[in-house]
Amino acid sequence: MLRFSPPRGELLETSSEFTVQAGGAESNVAVAAARLGANTTWLSKLPKSPLGKRVESSIRQHGVTPAVAWDASTETRQGVYYLEHGAEPRPTTVLYDRRDAAITTVTPSELDTTTIESASLFFTTGITPALSATTTETTHKLLEVASAADTRTAFDLNYRAKLWEPADARETYESLFELLDLLFIPERDAHHVLGMSGSASEIAATLSETYNIETVVITRGEDGALALRDDSTVTQPIFETETVDPIGTGDAFVGGFLAEELTGSPLEQSLAVGSAAAALKRTLHGDVAVISRAEVANVLSDSGYGIDR
Amino acid sequence: MLRFSPPRGELLETSSEFTVQAGGAESNVAVAAARLGANTTWLSKLPKSPLGKRVESSIRQHGVTPAVAWDASTETRQGVYYLEHGAEPRPTTVLYDRRDAAITTVTPSELDTTTIESASLFFTTGITPALSATTTETTHKLLEVASAADTRTAFDLNYRAKLWEPADARETYESLFELLDLLFIPERDAHHVLGMSGSASEIAATLSETYNIETVVITRGEDGALALRDDSTVTQPIFETETVDPIGTGDAFVGGFLAEELTGSPLEQSLAVGSAAAALKRTLHGDVAVISRAEVANVLSDSGYGIDR
Amino acid sequence: MLRFSPPRGELLETSSEFTVQAGGAESNVAVAAARLGANTTWLSKLPKSPLGKRVESSIRQHGVTPAVAWDASTETRQGVYYLEHGAEPRPTTVLYDRRDAAITTVTPSELDTTTIESASLFFTTGITPALSATTTETTHKLLEVASAADTRTAFDLNYRAKLWEPADARETYESLFELLDLLFIPERDAHHVLGMSGSASEIAATLSETYNIETVVITRGEDGALALRDDSTVTQPIFETETVDPIGTGDAFVGGFLAEELTGSPLEQSLAVGSAAAALKRTLHGDVAVISRAEVANVLSDSGYGIDR
Amino acid sequence: MLRFSPPRGELLETSSEFTVQAGGAESNVAVAAARLGANTTWLSKLPKSPLGKRVESSIRQHGVTPAVAWDASTETRQGVYYLEHGAEPRPTTVLYDRRDAAITTVTPSELDTTTIESASLFFTTGITPALSATTTETTHKLLEVASAADTRTAFDLNYRAKLWEPADARETYESLFELLDLLFIPERDAHHVLGMSGSASEIAATLSETYNIETVVITRGEDGALALRDDSTVTQPIFETETVDPIGTGDAFVGGFLAEELTGSPLEQSLAVGSAAAALKRTLHGDVAVISRAEVANVLSDSGYGIDR
Amino acid sequence: MLRFSPPRGELLETSSEFTVQAGGAESNVAVAAARLGANTTWLSKLPKSPLGKRVESSIRQHGVTPAVAWDASTETRQGVYYLEHGAEPRPTTVLYDRRDAAITTVTPSELDTTTIESASLFFTTGITPALSATTTETTHKLLEVASAADTRTAFDLNYRAKLWEPADARETYESLFELLDLLFIPERDAHHVLGMSGSASEIAATLSETYNIETVVITRGEDGALALRDDSTVTQPIFETETVDPIGTGDAFVGGFLAEELTGSPLEQSLAVGSAAAALKRTLHGDVAVISRAEVANVLSDSGYGIDR
Amino acid sequence: MLRFSPPRGELLETSSEFTVQAGGAESNVAVAAARLGANTTWLSKLPKSPLGKRVESSIRQHGVTPAVAWDASTETRQGVYYLEHGAEPRPTTVLYDRRDAAITTVTPSELDTTTIESASLFFTTGITPALSATTTETTHKLLEVASAADTRTAFDLNYRAKLWEPADARETYESLFELLDLLFIPERDAHHVLGMSGSASEIAATLSETYNIETVVITRGEDGALALRDDSTVTQPIFETETVDPIGTGDAFVGGFLAEELTGSPLEQSLAVGSAAAALKRTLHGDVAVISRAEVANVLSDSGYGIDR
Repeated sequence: MLRFSPPRGELLETSSEFTVQAGGAESNVAVAAARLGANTTWLSKLPKSPLGKRVESSIRQHGVTPAVAWDASTETRQGVYYLEHGAEPRPTTVLYDRRDAAITTVTPSELDTTTIESASLFFTTGITPALSATTTETTHKLLEVASAADTRTAFDLNYRAKLWEPADARETYESLFELLDLLFIPERDAHHVLGMSGSASEIAATLSETYNIETVVITRGEDGALALRDDSTVTQPIFETETVDPIGTGDAFVGGFLAEELTGSPLEQSLAVGSAAAALKRTLHGDVAVISRAEVANVLSDSGYGIDR
Repeated sequence: MLRFSPPRGELLETSSEFTVQAGGAESNVAVAAARLGANTTWLSKLPKSPLGKRVESSIRQHGVTPAVAWDASTETRQGVYYLEHGAEPRPTTVLYDRRDAAITTVTPSELDTTTIESASLFFTTGITPALSATTTETTHKLLEVASAADTRTAFDLNYRAKLWEPADARETYESLFELLDLLFIPERDAHHVLGMSGSASEIAATLSETYNIETVVITRGEDGALALRDDSTVTQPIFETETVDPIGTGDAFVGGFLAEELTGSPLEQSLAVGSAAAALKRTLHGDVAVISRAEVANVLSDSGYGIDR
Repeated sequence: MLRFSPPRGELLETSSEFTVQAGGAESNVAVAAARLGANTTWLSKLPKSPLGKRVESSIRQHGVTPAVAWDASTETRQGVYYLEHGAEPRPTTVLYDRRDAAITTVTPSELDTTTIESASLFFTTGITPALSATTTETTHKLLEVASAADTRTAFDLNYRAKLWEPADARETYESLFELLDLLFIPERDAHHVLGMSGSASEIAATLSETYNIETVVITRGEDGALALRDDSTVTQPIFETETVDPIGTGDAFVGGFLAEELTGSPLEQSLAVGSAAAALKRTLHGDVAVISRAEVANVLSDSGYGIDR
Repeated sequence: MLRFSPPRGELLETSSEFTVQAGGAESNVAVAAARLGANTTWLSKLPKSPLGKRVESSIRQHGVTPAVAWDASTETRQGVYYLEHGAEPRPTTVLYDRRDAAITTVTPSELDTTTIESASLFFTTGITPALSATTTETTHKLLEVASAADTRTAFDLNYRAKLWEPADARETYESLFELLDLLFIPERDAHHVLGMSGSASEIAATLSETYNIETVVITRGEDGALALRDDSTVTQPIFETETVDPIGTGDAFVGGFLAEELTGSPLEQSLAVGSAAAALKRTLHGDVAVISRAEVANVLSDSGYGIDR
Repeated sequence: MLRFSPPRGELLETSSEFTVQAGGAESNVAVAAARLGANTTWLSKLPKSPLGKRVESSIRQHGVTPAVAWDASTETRQGVYYLEHGAEPRPTTVLYDRRDAAITTVTPSELDTTTIESASLFFTTGITPALSATTTETTHKLLEVASAADTRTAFDLNYRAKLWEPADARETYESLFELLDLLFIPERDAHHVLGMSGSASEIAATLSETYNIETVVITRGEDGALALRDDSTVTQPIFETETVDPIGTGDAFVGGFLAEELTGSPLEQSLAVGSAAAALKRTLHGDVAVISRAEVANVLSDSGYGIDR
Repeated sequence: MLRFSPPRGELLETSSEFTVQAGGAESNVAVAAARLGANTTWLSKLPKSPLGKRVESSIRQHGVTPAVAWDASTETRQGVYYLEHGAEPRPTTVLYDRRDAAITTVTPSELDTTTIESASLFFTTGITPALSATTTETTHKLLEVASAADTRTAFDLNYRAKLWEPADARETYESLFELLDLLFIPERDAHHVLGMSGSASEIAATLSETYNIETVVITRGEDGALALRDDSTVTQPIFETETVDPIGTGDAFVGGFLAEELTGSPLEQSLAVGSAAAALKRTLHGDVAVISRAEVANVLSDSGYGIDR
């Protein structure tokens, strides 16, 4: 998607300038992972227009290899979202404008699925299946392609209330769970969308057992994160941050986690890197975590925050 | 519509900031006419969102009374267009993004047609019927409402190649012509869309006779404009301009013409005011002609261009 | 007035760009009330210049009907104020530049007082009489016009130390009090300007009794607000806010209160809406509260502050 | 004065940002001369405020020594002007806002007149006496101070139609002429204000003889300039320029001329440097000619315009 | 290099904001070629810093594959240049700041020369050898690597007066000529630096024969370009352009020429594509030609310049 | 130096605009002192380029008299630093780019040392000797010039880890200490660089005794400052601040301290003024403390922070 946002303290209704950036859950995760050293490819479908091209070049700029199906149809368009930064008590507001976006018509045959088959890990999110019946089916099939090729699968649930109803979302999610090796899920979505109760670790255990998911990561907002694998649970508090822009925090967390996971690190280290990436993202404007390994190491070592000169 | 445009010399693909403005053929005409003293109301349908509200408040700011049908449906959206300023030999490019715009579903019953019945003049353009079958029908019916109420009708043909094919446009236009009292038509569209040949005055005469249109105004780009009424023809050359932004030139022309026409001025005076309004518009960023009677008078009197201090 | 302000962290002395906005106590109140549904007209006198026209169109943009006396004299000018945003320990500074502003010469005969006579409520502030002897007299007469027509009168005391001395202000205020139905007064001004002592509720009671004012609202900064009517007192704490721009907070409070009051709501509800409007205003750049009923409802229901997506 | 201007193609009525710069005829001349090597002091009176301080520090930044009488009165203010850039056929517009400016009350006793007595040359313009009766008298007295001290006097007529009537201006100018050693006068003002006829050289001769002025320089817009001294006339065509901002062209011309004159160069060289300075000024935003000797030499040698790398 | 430039009409000495972009002769050529479909890799050496990383990601964003030798030494830095846009008669000025730039120490062993060996064509410019003795030697060796691998070699002479003296440049250039298959040379450099005389076609013929260069392209500014191959000469006039930013015109020409050449097109077609790319570049801010095949085709077909909607 | 910085929340790697300002330890101190009334001259060496000229005019703008040795050599350059604003947990980062800066070659004979001899006080910092062997020697000699002329000497230790190793710095500092009358030293540098232990007052006493330094001021970050003179110690806590830009805090402290010291105030008053200047600086963008005596007095009197209107 493209993101249009007025400056902080100004409104969609009145601001004369919007900042333009590319962003989207999957690409945000890909960028965060790429910045931390992972070799990443991003599969998508974009309109053959300056706006579609903009999304592709932005992805590439940050070190991700784009593998785009170009859509020349005049029936589709570039998905857009409008972001209005809030300040207490005015919430940050997201206005989606993605009807008829090119991505809503994507089918597996349009994508280069050999990149999935040869990858170590395939990642997608719960936003894509929310867009259309076609993307629901495509998501399902791509996860099957990955499974069939023994490519590990990872999924960030990422429920969006403005895109679908909890019941619809739940049905789709549950149909996908058995295809997953790693699941990222916000605790509030487990409660609100999946109708689960209990503590974060109970939720993780239930999901892992019910759907035979190797690793379940529960994100808990201010309360940090928890990961379960092989019946063992690790937790990670959040790092203190001065927030410049909260959008993309969860994606940076997932990207950081996966980049570390792919190096073979232990679960707690992946969780820590994810949390550090999330904290660093919040200090930057835009959806994407333009961060580095050195910055993550600095956060993890708690080597101090001040002026580096 | 909302218009998003990068600064001159920058591209939709790469610019980090877009300027945001409201614009659209009918509202541009309404603003130009209002700025020159006409009492104007703008009928439209907008999404109930900050973007729709922005369009409405922008119209109102310039002195036009908005009469908006608010659309709360999540199935429609705010129409948008992207403008990339050109420089020779790179053309100025317009990228429409108005699929599923709220306006595409507008019906007469949603609009306050009493404002049409009590008005001196009802104006619409050939862009609106290009948007959907619904808007084609609505345009037709609103012109009928006006005719039935003895409200004069005015129409700017305004063919847009990115919206429909010439043959489709022609069929629609021709079905509307007999409802018109004033017709504005670019000479190139008479040739290319209506398939007419001959000089501008011959075209005007043919249209006037065939469809019994009281006044026909032919705009001829660099070659000025020509108007025919009661078998009498007047012409007007363009005024020299240093162009800052060409978008909206034709709308300013029509708005200026109509504002003057509504005061009962002779045809040549309306044509002159239209041309002056068009020239002034081109010196301003944005679709709308934020101009004044005094500025128009200054252009018409040719009282000099320089520093006024 | 027009407001010129450098960006936060920059100075009037050095910044190369000033943001330009319209603002003023009465128009700020009118905008806040109009945004929350009140039908409002703003009476004023402005210079016939692009700057005066700017103020008018800005008012209209936000949904208020301007009723302006245009002043073509070269002896008057557009009032301006310069705002330098502070950061602790450097205070936010206001530099008034309103000598010879057109408004300082306004007389009742120049204004459309029939709008006052047909209104439900007439509002003005204690800033206007501070500008000149003429505006003192005009304020008095307009309140008499309202009283004579049984239009309710409301007044925000709004003492400005840079405009006049406490003793002069007090004399003028006290001459106006008996014409008032609603009085808004900051607790500190009651102490410092009117020389009153005692608690906020004692002050309210004294003012109400002495001058026979139906409703007295005391604003108490961080300590919230208190309103007295019919011997009954209600209080309202402030809402937590992250302040982007504090200018116009009081005006948003009054505008919110009056918009609710005009719907016939009970006093505590008006006080609550005023407080919510004030809190929302502080999250926005500029003097005016570009807010909505939905946002106020969200604050009142405390339905949470975060990302709405 | 401070100058507030919206970007090119935007209006005072609608632009959300104004660029802020200091400018004024005398200080512009002083800056141009200082940039080209003259040792210059600027005498003025400014309000003791951040805006007055801004004007002073801006003058100093460009190498002129400010000698300011600070005015702490609340009865005066910083003079301001608003500049709206035109584009043919819309003229560039200047809106003065200098009523009650501190400078309008300046008297000789407030200024450090010893700097005039010890200088080689004292310069002022015909704008200052237009501001008030006080400034008319002060201008007269300062020219007398200079004459009495054998400091050469120079004066740029600079008639401003928005400040006074031609007849009033003429009376004042004529009372000052006999105190002058150098006079700069636009040909159009000689015609329109002084009521003179004849060619530029005839005008120069008449002024020189009638008032015993050593050097008369006639500026003729597109037609260049002409200077007369000791019965000998030299002329200078303008240099081709691409104009970014025309304001301050005449001041740059005078500053360039005087800087060269003060080095003892022949008249034609001073005229050439003035013309080059004027041409360079037009390529820059703002009133002041931030130019260098090297740039002037490059223009004079016609060593080519292109990319210097 | 990074390029820092104030807005047009502002100066390095006074502007408060500089626009930051990456640019450099070789990378500009690579981007132009990549945008037109060529598969390109860019070899360079950059400091391991945010500035070096910026250059790399900018190159990648535009579709070129960067192959960078990262330099962690504190003894080197990121090369920078400052660009001040001129307006007649003030020239556009380039201020190089590339002393100790990382690139000045680059040796062949630091670069991935296998990319040269497997490429169809290796391109470099006459700027690189101007930077240091090391880069002179490296340029020589890389051309030898290409020759040895039967990779075609192309070279843009690109003499820069601010980097070295004509005699030094000539000696270096002449030592490289016999390694070249394609040579691009401005006519003025053939005269001024190589001391050649005669017409453009005579110069081309002499260079081709003397050094056995397969193809010689002479660029002649306003007079277009000429290419010689196999004793046959073709010429191409320039396309009319409205210039927004002239920097990078020559690089766009070369990039366009090479992209077309690599598709096997005849020489005249390559020359035409180069000229169209150069014209399009001039309509864009920045060094790089963010252009497309469709835009080039539009220029070549002369299908008109106006508004495309 | 020139300072280039992206906006807060943006990165050197990605931001398209950098704000440009002049700054440097000695000039920052000079500006702060000048703003508070001290008569100051700044000695330096700058490249003869628009960038060097920019630094000079910026210094002059703020009321300091520049005395610059201009360097026309192409072997030196303008020193630059890049500043990336941090937000917890991402540190604020300074990237120095001052290799071969003109200042690194400065010798006493190039500077106007008579200004030192006639001054009340000579100030320099520990950054200058870190730049090169030449500047180490120049620093030493200038302090000797001052001592010989009975000009008081002041020195701010200001260790910069990115410029040299602690051991090297220590050796240089210790060689300078006996030439000092006033020493400013951060407590952390006393520990880390000088290898001292003990409390702040013990460190001050040791330095004063060992090197016979009249006044030692220890800055302690959040813990305020301590000064020792004549065996008597005074302390000063910091003032609460909302930090907009922390760079230059220490320089503002020293400038404020020295401006007050030069008026003959007691030590505690100088310490208080320094602390207030430091607090005010932090509320402003840029290195320099554009502050006033009135603002300092307001901080010291704790007369309240709010809106001044």
